[in-house]
Amino acid sequence: MSVGETCNFGVLTASDRASSGEYEDLSGPAIEEFLSQALTSPWKICRRLVADEQSIIEDALKSLSDDENCSVIITTGGTGPAPRDVTPEATEAVCERLLPGFGEQMRAISLRHVPTAVLSRQTAGIRGSTLILNLPGSPRSIREILDEIFAAVPYCVDLIGGPYITTDSKIVDSFRPPHARRD
Amino acid sequence: MSVGETCNFGVLTASDRASSGEYEDLSGPAIEEFLSQALTSPWKICRRLVADEQSIIEDALKSLSDDENCSVIITTGGTGPAPRDVTPEATEAVCERLLPGFGEQMRAISLRHVPTAVLSRQTAGIRGSTLILNLPGSPRSIREILDEIFAAVPYCVDLIGGPYITTDSKIVDSFRPPHARRD
Amino acid sequence: MSVGETCNFGVLTASDRASSGEYEDLSGPAIEEFLSQALTSPWKICRRLVADEQSIIEDALKSLSDDENCSVIITTGGTGPAPRDVTPEATEAVCERLLPGFGEQMRAISLRHVPTAVLSRQTAGIRGSTLILNLPGSPRSIREILDEIFAAVPYCVDLIGGPYITTDSKIVDSFRPPHARRD
Repeated sequence: MSVGETCNFGVLTASDRASSGEYEDLSGPAIEEFLSQALTSPWKICRRLVADEQSIIEDALKSLSDDENCSVIITTGGTGPAPRDVTPEATEAVCERLLPGFGEQMRAISLRHVPTAVLSRQTAGIRGSTLILNLPGSPRSIREILDEIFAAVPYCVDLIGGPYITTDSKIVDSFRPPHARRD
Repeated sequence: MSVGETCNFGVLTASDRASSGEYEDLSGPAIEEFLSQALTSPWKICRRLVADEQSIIEDALKSLSDDENCSVIITTGGTGPAPRDVTPEATEAVCERLLPGFGEQMRAISLRHVPTAVLSRQTAGIRGSTLILNLPGSPRSIREILDEIFAAVPYCVDLIGGPYITTDSKIVDSFRPPHARRD
Repeated sequence: MSVGETCNFGVLTASDRASSGEYEDLSGPAIEEFLSQALTSPWKICRRLVADEQSIIEDALKSLSDDENCSVIITTGGTGPAPRDVTPEATEAVCERLLPGFGEQMRAISLRHVPTAVLSRQTAGIRGSTLILNLPGSPRSIREILDEIFAAVPYCVDLIGGPYITTDSKIVDSFRPPHARRD
């Protein structure tokens, strides 16, 4: 992990309707707003907006990971049970290993608000040096989830060889074990 | 989703002893009693009682989904760690996609009552337009679980193209996002 | 299940640094101390200390299960997201079936203490008549987890055909359904 190095974040919105212009993508901007409030170390963002097609989502994830060198990719949309929801499938296809705890915790957080959170198939995994996280499509749910789970993201990026991320503890009180702290 | 259309429910009991007549199947009737109390939209039930054999369970699930056009199949039994417990394997084999949240939430509910709930391998998934849910074998656990998780079933059935299900809010306060409400 | 029969426990530490002698293995002894406090039925322990290599971990798990007839194998270490963490992969490779509830519950327990518990990929499964449980590497986390989840281990061992395990209820209040009790 390297202190002071810029961390690249990918934000991928999967939505047939937003990608066709039928309505505005509010989810990608909600993630960007969270990052701008939470991060205190240098960062850059690379956003993509694609249709709910598994091969297109896979290509976008690979490009953000392999070409744009994103340490973290946050997806939004396409995690429900409907036939066009394929973001988890695309994520599993491009990751070498999965982190089942993120899906479990994200569903547990959303279940405090709506019982239909049980239907979400969100997952997370690692492709090379990139952590990929699936978030739901609703901007309100995105914020509820990121406020809580992002606390584990900086240490995860350390462990997979990325830049040293720091956060504003008023927004996200991120945690590292004592031996991993550099600040 | 179609308001007023009859929804077919399949109830499958997997049990060597109940299917051989060694004892009475109490779990299938417990599920039927729950449905009769909870549902306020038109419904029909199709019950099956089979031995703990993976191929037999798979055939019964396929028949309930493909021939009987069940929108929801609720299984009971065969979800533990014993060698004859094979209901989750049969479920995974016939589903195109899994919904991991149901297994997580059902175990969390049962863990409030018994620590051995951690041993349950219950899962859920979707085959075509059918939601398949694994429940444990004990009638008391069945009720504890259905009272809570059924709140997400009507909206799930909407999303996979089934009839519009409504419930008695005194039994199950089922939830749909505002744009999906028809009542 | 056989009352009075000795139960063999395998304890496997996966750690590059402990196995090379760079530092002392504290996790294996922490598990052994827990067992010595918790168990009131006859038991024996078989400990292994190996590097974080998937094939070596798999061989050790197979040997503890097939040659040493362990009814329970508890691993420690190698469950994080770093490239050298491969204990869950080795566990899945040697098990015929997985018990997802253990990973879910262990992460939920550790999340009460540190948000980075979400990164753990701990799993559990069954190989023949052996229950394999992945624990994290930190001795403190080990104890927090075992104090809680071990309550389900004796009944699980009953169900997969092992000896009848009893515990000191002041340490672990293990649970069996009434029909399975022999004490």
